[in-house]
Amino acid sequence: MRASDLSHHVSKWFDGSGPGADIVISSRIRLARNLAGYEFLPCLTTRRQAEVMEKLTKALLSLELGEAVFFIDVDASSALEQDVLVERHLISRQHARSKGPRGAVIAPSESFTAMINEEDHLRIQVFKTGLQLRECWQQIDRIDSCIEEKVDYAFDPGYGYLTACPTNVGTGIRVSVMVHLPALKMTGQIDKFFNAARDSDLMVRGLFGEGTEAVGDFFQVSNQVTLGVSEEQIVDEFVDLIVPKITQYEAMAREVLLNQQSDAVDDKIQRALGVLRSARLISSQEALFLLSHVRLGINLGRVDGISIDAVNELFMLTQPAHLQMNSGGALDADHRDAMRAKMIRSKLCVN
Amino acid sequence: MRASDLSHHVSKWFDGSGPGADIVISSRIRLARNLAGYEFLPCLTTRRQAEVMEKLTKALLSLELGEAVFFIDVDASSALEQDVLVERHLISRQHARSKGPRGAVIAPSESFTAMINEEDHLRIQVFKTGLQLRECWQQIDRIDSCIEEKVDYAFDPGYGYLTACPTNVGTGIRVSVMVHLPALKMTGQIDKFFNAARDSDLMVRGLFGEGTEAVGDFFQVSNQVTLGVSEEQIVDEFVDLIVPKITQYEAMAREVLLNQQSDAVDDKIQRALGVLRSARLISSQEALFLLSHVRLGINLGRVDGISIDAVNELFMLTQPAHLQMNSGGALDADHRDAMRAKMIRSKLCVN
Repeated sequence: MRASDLSHHVSKWFDGSGPGADIVISSRIRLARNLAGYEFLPCLTTRRQAEVMEKLTKALLSLELGEAVFFIDVDASSALEQDVLVERHLISRQHARSKGPRGAVIAPSESFTAMINEEDHLRIQVFKTGLQLRECWQQIDRIDSCIEEKVDYAFDPGYGYLTACPTNVGTGIRVSVMVHLPALKMTGQIDKFFNAARDSDLMVRGLFGEGTEAVGDFFQVSNQVTLGVSEEQIVDEFVDLIVPKITQYEAMAREVLLNQQSDAVDDKIQRALGVLRSARLISSQEALFLLSHVRLGINLGRVDGISIDAVNELFMLTQPAHLQMNSGGALDADHRDAMRAKMIRSKLCVN
Repeated sequence: MRASDLSHHVSKWFDGSGPGADIVISSRIRLARNLAGYEFLPCLTTRRQAEVMEKLTKALLSLELGEAVFFIDVDASSALEQDVLVERHLISRQHARSKGPRGAVIAPSESFTAMINEEDHLRIQVFKTGLQLRECWQQIDRIDSCIEEKVDYAFDPGYGYLTACPTNVGTGIRVSVMVHLPALKMTGQIDKFFNAARDSDLMVRGLFGEGTEAVGDFFQVSNQVTLGVSEEQIVDEFVDLIVPKITQYEAMAREVLLNQQSDAVDDKIQRALGVLRSARLISSQEALFLLSHVRLGINLGRVDGISIDAVNELFMLTQPAHLQMNSGGALDADHRDAMRAKMIRSKLCVN
């Protein structure tokens, strides 16, 4: 299985089918682990990096997840293949553009992915659609134990799991939800969300695009503290406190839009749809921005005849690397913009 | 006949039917005249201003133009009625908002209009669709002579016709064409046009909207010199030199768009149409801007199923005063924007 086999469809975690997925797109838990007896990256020699990869790949490929996981040699992959994996959140941009022996082990459903020799020797992730953090935790905890039966993790009785960066030490856990907050953005209340997140020691990043910018009103909210609290405590705080608060903010903002600014919100939604159905050239940033409004429109019941599936598919497949992979190779920006516009029209236009 | 009787349809001069009207929307000639024995405005007392109005109205109402002209008491008109006349280019904004006895005499076809007690005692104008400046001149010269048979114009054998502002003295003529130059704008060459106009002592102003801004790529090009040249010379220069040059510039820019930037121009045109067909709120400025692109699209053969008539109608009837007059009274900006969007959708949408 290769990146090109994944690039034709939407990742399961983004399909909008999970609980509360009109606001909480997906849940993700990541664990950072390192092998005992090996230096942290980047102090690891290439030869020893290859040894780490061999050991971990073997352990990961023997996992029994109900589907056969597959290995991708990231170092041997083309830039386009790497970018497809990045756009699907299966590997990090840092992992894609790094050097030396490194790989990924991925479940075809994309509910599980592991990066080998990224910042740590091993980073495993479980994704689920909607708010399913407890389910993510149960699954990743089981996977982690299975791996630990086959390899020796670097572990300190005082600190817990040891990691390359001290911010991950202890549990090595990162719990995150991807949320869609277009109404908070439209009503000018997004700062309220940012402030509340900062006060709770949460990190907020954009879901799509490079860096931390949040294109299309998608945000990734994650914990920053990994030491001194148990994994269950972190998950419970997300499920019982943080996510309900974010969801409530956004839901209230949607109510305000519907009840007090229905002309303005319909205008934004319909214009977005009008431009998507008409444009002959469209950048990925603009497409995300407009699709975000259409997604809101569908969730508010203000758009007829377009499924959330169609919109989710466009979110994912109009990304630059997906677009190029699915059209057979590298394209310059102008051609990508033309092809993206064509794909969107064919998906959203009636005729 | 009243302003409200005019407000439902497009002025003849804007109907796009004249020669070369894909670029030269319309032709206009205006003459400035004053009565002998009366002070110029604003030195004229209200009583004597009323006398001037009475004399001129009488002379104008007896004109035989093949249609019965009608009088509008501008001072007694509501602001909305005045604004409809301004939006139709039948009176100036200055005339609408001035004080004291003043009026307009208008032909129902709107090919002829006279302002009484604007900057001069009398300003008569003839409008025609497309490039028809010679025809405008023949008609206005004849009308001017008919009026002169009934009143005494202030005339000096050395200077010619005397006017309130020295820039009009001599012939008192202003010759102008309204041109649509979207391709020069899109290709970034509009400055070439401005520079050429300035070098030829021409004045360029916007056609729609207040002030001199050119919304929707419509420009009004007129002469500045009125002294020392004959009316025929000015008209000839426009018809033989100025207008062909402008038309050639724009036509070449349209060729460039079609041949070298067809994706980009189709994108602009289709986006404009998409937004016009989708928006729930739209300002008059944005409507003009987008309709201008659609007009270009029709003239380039890139838009199917929409007539130039429909677009011209929208240009005129979506203006703020027209919109309010046709919906029965004053509306705030939000309601105007909603009503404008609705009118545009009903005109441009298939279903």
